[in-house]
Amino acid sequence: MEETARVIEAIWELLDAGRDERLADLLAEAHPADVARAIRELPVKDQVRVFRLLTPQHAGAVLGELDDPTLRELVRSLDEAEVSRALDRMPSDEVVNVVEELPKEQAEEILDLMEEGKAEEVQELLEYPEGTAGRLMSPDFVAVLETATVAQAIEHIRKAKTGDGAFYVYVVDDHDHLVGFVPLHRLITADPATTISAIRTEDVESVTADTDQEEVARLVQRYDLIQVPVVDANRRLLGVIGVEDVLDVIREEATEDIQRLGGVGGDENVLDPPQSVFTKRLVWRLINLGTAVLAASVIGLFEQSIQSLATLAVFMPIVASMGGIGTTQTATIVVRGIALGDMTGSVLRRVLWKELWLGLTTGAANGLVIAAIAYVWKGQILLALILAMALVFNMLVAAVVGTLIPVALKAFRIDPAIASSVIITTFTDVCGFFSFLGLATVLIRFLL
Amino acid sequence: MEETARVIEAIWELLDAGRDERLADLLAEAHPADVARAIRELPVKDQVRVFRLLTPQHAGAVLGELDDPTLRELVRSLDEAEVSRALDRMPSDEVVNVVEELPKEQAEEILDLMEEGKAEEVQELLEYPEGTAGRLMSPDFVAVLETATVAQAIEHIRKAKTGDGAFYVYVVDDHDHLVGFVPLHRLITADPATTISAIRTEDVESVTADTDQEEVARLVQRYDLIQVPVVDANRRLLGVIGVEDVLDVIREEATEDIQRLGGVGGDENVLDPPQSVFTKRLVWRLINLGTAVLAASVIGLFEQSIQSLATLAVFMPIVASMGGIGTTQTATIVVRGIALGDMTGSVLRRVLWKELWLGLTTGAANGLVIAAIAYVWKGQILLALILAMALVFNMLVAAVVGTLIPVALKAFRIDPAIASSVIITTFTDVCGFFSFLGLATVLIRFLL
Repeated sequence: MEETARVIEAIWELLDAGRDERLADLLAEAHPADVARAIRELPVKDQVRVFRLLTPQHAGAVLGELDDPTLRELVRSLDEAEVSRALDRMPSDEVVNVVEELPKEQAEEILDLMEEGKAEEVQELLEYPEGTAGRLMSPDFVAVLETATVAQAIEHIRKAKTGDGAFYVYVVDDHDHLVGFVPLHRLITADPATTISAIRTEDVESVTADTDQEEVARLVQRYDLIQVPVVDANRRLLGVIGVEDVLDVIREEATEDIQRLGGVGGDENVLDPPQSVFTKRLVWRLINLGTAVLAASVIGLFEQSIQSLATLAVFMPIVASMGGIGTTQTATIVVRGIALGDMTGSVLRRVLWKELWLGLTTGAANGLVIAAIAYVWKGQILLALILAMALVFNMLVAAVVGTLIPVALKAFRIDPAIASSVIITTFTDVCGFFSFLGLATVLIRFLL
Repeated sequence: MEETARVIEAIWELLDAGRDERLADLLAEAHPADVARAIRELPVKDQVRVFRLLTPQHAGAVLGELDDPTLRELVRSLDEAEVSRALDRMPSDEVVNVVEELPKEQAEEILDLMEEGKAEEVQELLEYPEGTAGRLMSPDFVAVLETATVAQAIEHIRKAKTGDGAFYVYVVDDHDHLVGFVPLHRLITADPATTISAIRTEDVESVTADTDQEEVARLVQRYDLIQVPVVDANRRLLGVIGVEDVLDVIREEATEDIQRLGGVGGDENVLDPPQSVFTKRLVWRLINLGTAVLAASVIGLFEQSIQSLATLAVFMPIVASMGGIGTTQTATIVVRGIALGDMTGSVLRRVLWKELWLGLTTGAANGLVIAAIAYVWKGQILLALILAMALVFNMLVAAVVGTLIPVALKAFRIDPAIASSVIITTFTDVCGFFSFLGLATVLIRFLL
């Protein structure tokens, strides 16, 4: 990414020096993605200045590359007319990517100012719900009749206005139904007199407009696709989704999983204003407070034992902490396995055994270590044994909970990634405190 | 994925019924990815049976689609000759994907049995270190001289043996240096008499063979590429990396981040045999044990206070637990931000303020709630206040630690994702116990 860093630095320098003409030249040559990177690190008045130095064509592309918080901030400082002029130059599916991130009123005003044809196309795409194939697709593609010859197909491509992003020609029958595709490479190497139906691939993976974008991403990854056609209920071709949009989906989904496992919203950006994420953060922190109080109430049951032997309070959090790492490790593997499609019902038993085996073996190893530490520290062999037993038991609980809770959530069609440590470690906290303090209480007269 | 499920079920049924001929027909029509899915859920002797029913062409593709543990298990049960026959039919970059996962000796034996030319190509690719662009690239591409005409270029494509996966023609000068590319779409729509140099895109993003695969993935995502050319130090074209390989990299990298944040190896699969992951799991669990003992030793300092007032032991883990969620949330956002390239040095201050603001506000809210609970439960207003203060303080520590530690790790070129809860919550555990028990100890005579 040295290229990006170089562009960013050059933009800053020219901005500082006030050399706007030179800056405009530089911007015209830079990749929109690099310009977007540079813009997000500027104060908003400089963002506006850079934006106004861009050609309208380029300005639209830069808007499309901005991260959401920066996009909203910049557009708030621009005239709707400027924004609509820039968007007029962009393919309609990319306009959708920008407009859907803006406040509703502003989005409508901008669409009103855009060219009618383009605005209508955008409106149509916006009618598909967020997160579906319809919302992702581009209505620009080349389709030819199966009865056409290769020469006719090439002539058709020449006349169509799709750009360099077309890698396939889609094949339709005379009712516009999708019946195959031909990669451009095959078209070039085929005899011009051949009919398309003779060289098409019939087996074409397609999705309907209401297909979930995650499903589209899985299809692309499983079958190594470059482009996925989107069809209606009658298999009529509506649009195509390019792999570059799928890359964005994959990145978003990974972010969602990572963040949910960490007990955060799922779509938070490091640069989001704190007020906008306050509620989501607070909710998880309150849930955590609730589970912590639950665990504390278990300790409360044994207050008498702790009063008699305060050493118990010293070792108590160790058992809970080891249960925590146990559940977190197991749940992480299982949640990721579900996302990748590796963790299916038929392998559940195998995974559960694996986790129990790991819980027992690592639990035993850790138990030995902590027993030795406890014995050396406090000189009580029985206390050391109780601690080790509680730890092994808790690691087994961790194996079961960490495996089954994500799977159960998935079965109930809840995102398994919300089985974050906040939720599942409650089980091991409670079991850990209960087993350690319970055993110690039963045997307390030998400990004093 | 209904298609996949249907194929899997059909394979199972035909296997059970022993209808091998019918099964071979079905397998020939199914997508290798679906066959691979079906195979992994079978006992190994059925895996071998299915594999032997595949055509050699298809068999290689299926091997390429298997997950690593299943691949290793299946290949162990096959003859090296069978495997080499299947691999002979595959493009050399895909052979690399299979061979690199096998035990070294077996891999060498298989390569010895393969066709000489193919084996050499594979060996050459295997010389590039794992995780580099060289290891990912395919040596199959079409390159034309910049002085050629469009008609000559098309003629050249016809003669080249690259398949449907070619989407670009690369342009080289007479020293074989990469000087541009032409998308096939543009080639088709251009006048056959035009020279290539007139229609090529000069600005071609390329990588060198030793570029890290993560860097390749970032380039593909930033510039929406379908294919990345790989060049040597003199800009001579060595190969191309397709977006489908980059998708695998992105998936692997996301898995690595998710797993490391969860305190697991980074490349563990749910189906890995437990023995093979034992050591990695154990190491993290032992590290966690160490940090837990460290936290326990802080409690040990205040054993006297707990002896006098066992209620302290009840509330103590709440402060630590809230510090834990605070650091985990913050670190998750920051680690993901670093991976996406959003979290750069220039925004560090902004992010730190955001996290401090969130720590203070949510800390205050949570502090109020826990103070109320503690007061109602134990009737001690001073204890409730101490608890609330320690909690707010710990949330501020969490904000600082959760932001700065991943950034510092990144600065030292260590994967920030290892700033998992195991490591960073140690800080909040220690600070939490210290602030709560310390305050209580100073004020203990008002609490008794």
